[in-house]
Amino acid sequence: MVNVAILGFGVVGSGVAEVLTQNKKIIENKLSCEVNIKYILDLREFPGNPFESLVIHDFNIILNDPEVSVVAEMMGGSHPAYDFSKACLEAGKSVVTSNKEVVANFGAELLDIARAHGVAYLFEASVGGGIPIIRPMCNDLASNNIVEVSGILNGTTNYILTKMATEGASFEDVLRDAQHKGYAESNPAADVEGLDAARKIVILAALAYGKLISPNSIYTEGITNITGEDVEFAAGFGYALKLIGHAEKIDGKALCMVSPRLIPMTNPLSSINDVFNGILLDGDMVGKVMFYGPGAGKLPTASAVCADIVDAIAHSDGIKLPEFEVATEDDIADFDNYSCRRMFIFDKCGDCTLDSKVAEKCLGCEIGQFAVKGNRVALITEAMTEAKVKEIAGKLNNCKVYRLL
Amino acid sequence: MVNVAILGFGVVGSGVAEVLTQNKKIIENKLSCEVNIKYILDLREFPGNPFESLVIHDFNIILNDPEVSVVAEMMGGSHPAYDFSKACLEAGKSVVTSNKEVVANFGAELLDIARAHGVAYLFEASVGGGIPIIRPMCNDLASNNIVEVSGILNGTTNYILTKMATEGASFEDVLRDAQHKGYAESNPAADVEGLDAARKIVILAALAYGKLISPNSIYTEGITNITGEDVEFAAGFGYALKLIGHAEKIDGKALCMVSPRLIPMTNPLSSINDVFNGILLDGDMVGKVMFYGPGAGKLPTASAVCADIVDAIAHSDGIKLPEFEVATEDDIADFDNYSCRRMFIFDKCGDCTLDSKVAEKCLGCEIGQFAVKGNRVALITEAMTEAKVKEIAGKLNNCKVYRLL
Repeated sequence: MVNVAILGFGVVGSGVAEVLTQNKKIIENKLSCEVNIKYILDLREFPGNPFESLVIHDFNIILNDPEVSVVAEMMGGSHPAYDFSKACLEAGKSVVTSNKEVVANFGAELLDIARAHGVAYLFEASVGGGIPIIRPMCNDLASNNIVEVSGILNGTTNYILTKMATEGASFEDVLRDAQHKGYAESNPAADVEGLDAARKIVILAALAYGKLISPNSIYTEGITNITGEDVEFAAGFGYALKLIGHAEKIDGKALCMVSPRLIPMTNPLSSINDVFNGILLDGDMVGKVMFYGPGAGKLPTASAVCADIVDAIAHSDGIKLPEFEVATEDDIADFDNYSCRRMFIFDKCGDCTLDSKVAEKCLGCEIGQFAVKGNRVALITEAMTEAKVKEIAGKLNNCKVYRLL
Repeated sequence: MVNVAILGFGVVGSGVAEVLTQNKKIIENKLSCEVNIKYILDLREFPGNPFESLVIHDFNIILNDPEVSVVAEMMGGSHPAYDFSKACLEAGKSVVTSNKEVVANFGAELLDIARAHGVAYLFEASVGGGIPIIRPMCNDLASNNIVEVSGILNGTTNYILTKMATEGASFEDVLRDAQHKGYAESNPAADVEGLDAARKIVILAALAYGKLISPNSIYTEGITNITGEDVEFAAGFGYALKLIGHAEKIDGKALCMVSPRLIPMTNPLSSINDVFNGILLDGDMVGKVMFYGPGAGKLPTASAVCADIVDAIAHSDGIKLPEFEVATEDDIADFDNYSCRRMFIFDKCGDCTLDSKVAEKCLGCEIGQFAVKGNRVALITEAMTEAKVKEIAGKLNNCKVYRLL
């Protein structure tokens, strides 16, 4: 029998208790041993809850119980989640987590501690909820150099953008509807401003490139400034507008960013709608593979946490953990040099009869598609750097710029 | 240093040599040891090939060399691939393979032999080419009961159906074009008649349900009878027509089948086009997750074989292998009881002014959508069993029936 402790009995934590109980048999068949929940740590009481008797409030009971060999951390936030995880690893207990904030900020250190103590630190649930992505990336694509990672990593913003595209609704109206349905939190900043996606893309980039970049240091643009007009222009050009976490290497250095992007309809990410997530990986040998599914939610996320619990137990005599280290300034590419195609949207100046040819001359770059609606002009340019974009945008009135994927 | 032998130096076999050579460093970093190709077994000579000096013709050299600990079998066909694999496992060598014919027919036995000898038998490349699917199914979804598996498992037929849908071309014309482009073989029977997909769906069903059903015993319908008219009727109703390998449980027993199916546009499988594959899994905890990518090809398939080589080496002291056994008649559900919605297409009889109401009366079932083109009628019914379909189809002229997903 293996004893497991659950840290944090919120949505995901209670989901883990449910999965371990409901699918007890299937898990035990895989492991040929029983998995027992011994403690659930939470500040609250849960009177009437079937797991009520397991709830404790003192972390040290778990830390000092040699019978507990696996700890599942689903507390959220950096502290005390990081501190508890570190203490458990140092005490020779494997830790599995859904906590992207801890992994994105302290993952390299915690992996080192786990390796030093011969235990596991696993975080499949930290990106893409229930979607298998971390383990496939480490194992199934082990013989690949990962060229590029692009993902719809946040369900709330994808729901909002899907509704804006299909119903022509405004950002504010859809956000209210999403909050009403429980898809968005009452304080939606971490989602709609892209921070949640930023944490996830730095984790994926660390697995791809071996360097963990601080999520607070990457270019992060959310969806709060997207208007129905922007979505319509994009659709008119044959693109879906999605919030994308993106990582690639430029001159051997890693670059991560989060921003809304135009996705061509031939890219499978373009048809990922509602609260679903999708992650597209480009490996030098395998080519493009995509992973799709529920990026959040109680049972999907718990399913991923439980996969890690099973893995930690099955390979308790030594599991191969991902290797990455904290990125230094030298490891990170200069964002100004990042180049891709763009969509510019701006005001027509006066009565000037602007057409594609005139625009090419004014902007000093080649232009693909071109459209005018009332006073607003939209056009798609050739690939250009961030530096060049700033230069051009400065010349235009009320200018908005979107990257293409 | 770990020594590997390659059996079969065709498309995939030469791809494996290429991946192991080109990405030698990245693989060695993951394993902290060198991976060396010691032998390549093939009947042919390869003068001028960079691997020429490694080519041998006598399997016993590999079998009897204690230095070879991992054998990658990419010969195709059942014999001698099965015999060689069995001999290697019995000699204490791990075997990895892309050979779906061997896995679908002898997988249960070979896994037992591997377990008995403490070595690995891995087959990630046997389904979905480069797409991570076998390992994620076994590991990432370990805490789930897999409710349903549906997949576009054959790139050749998906290419043909995509072209028929987008260009209105006939099956024969597109097949000729696909053969010309190298997407279809000169003898395309195994692809277009569904046998390739049948082998793959029985492998996925074995992982989901623990029972390996003979691919020759499952209902298998290919795409050779699909006409442009059928594709158009389906599109008119809002569905894509795809060749789908499908597995589910009915009353606790497993059912596998391969047939063309109508996929609603809301299902992510509907937008998988050209030679790409996609596998949609429905787990009771995670919900629906999909894996998408190149289902065939030299380097993608080799990428999956090499992932298995890395896994076999990394866990040489004991890897958790999938567990399934050969299905008995008692394990297999009665196909006649399989129930789903259907599209019927048939001739109008005489000048009868058939409408949806009349059709409901004639057929004795509820009808959803209904369309007429010239002399042909198409309609979508409620869910009904295979037995009921036979009864109804018998009453109709020139009747074709498609399942819905």
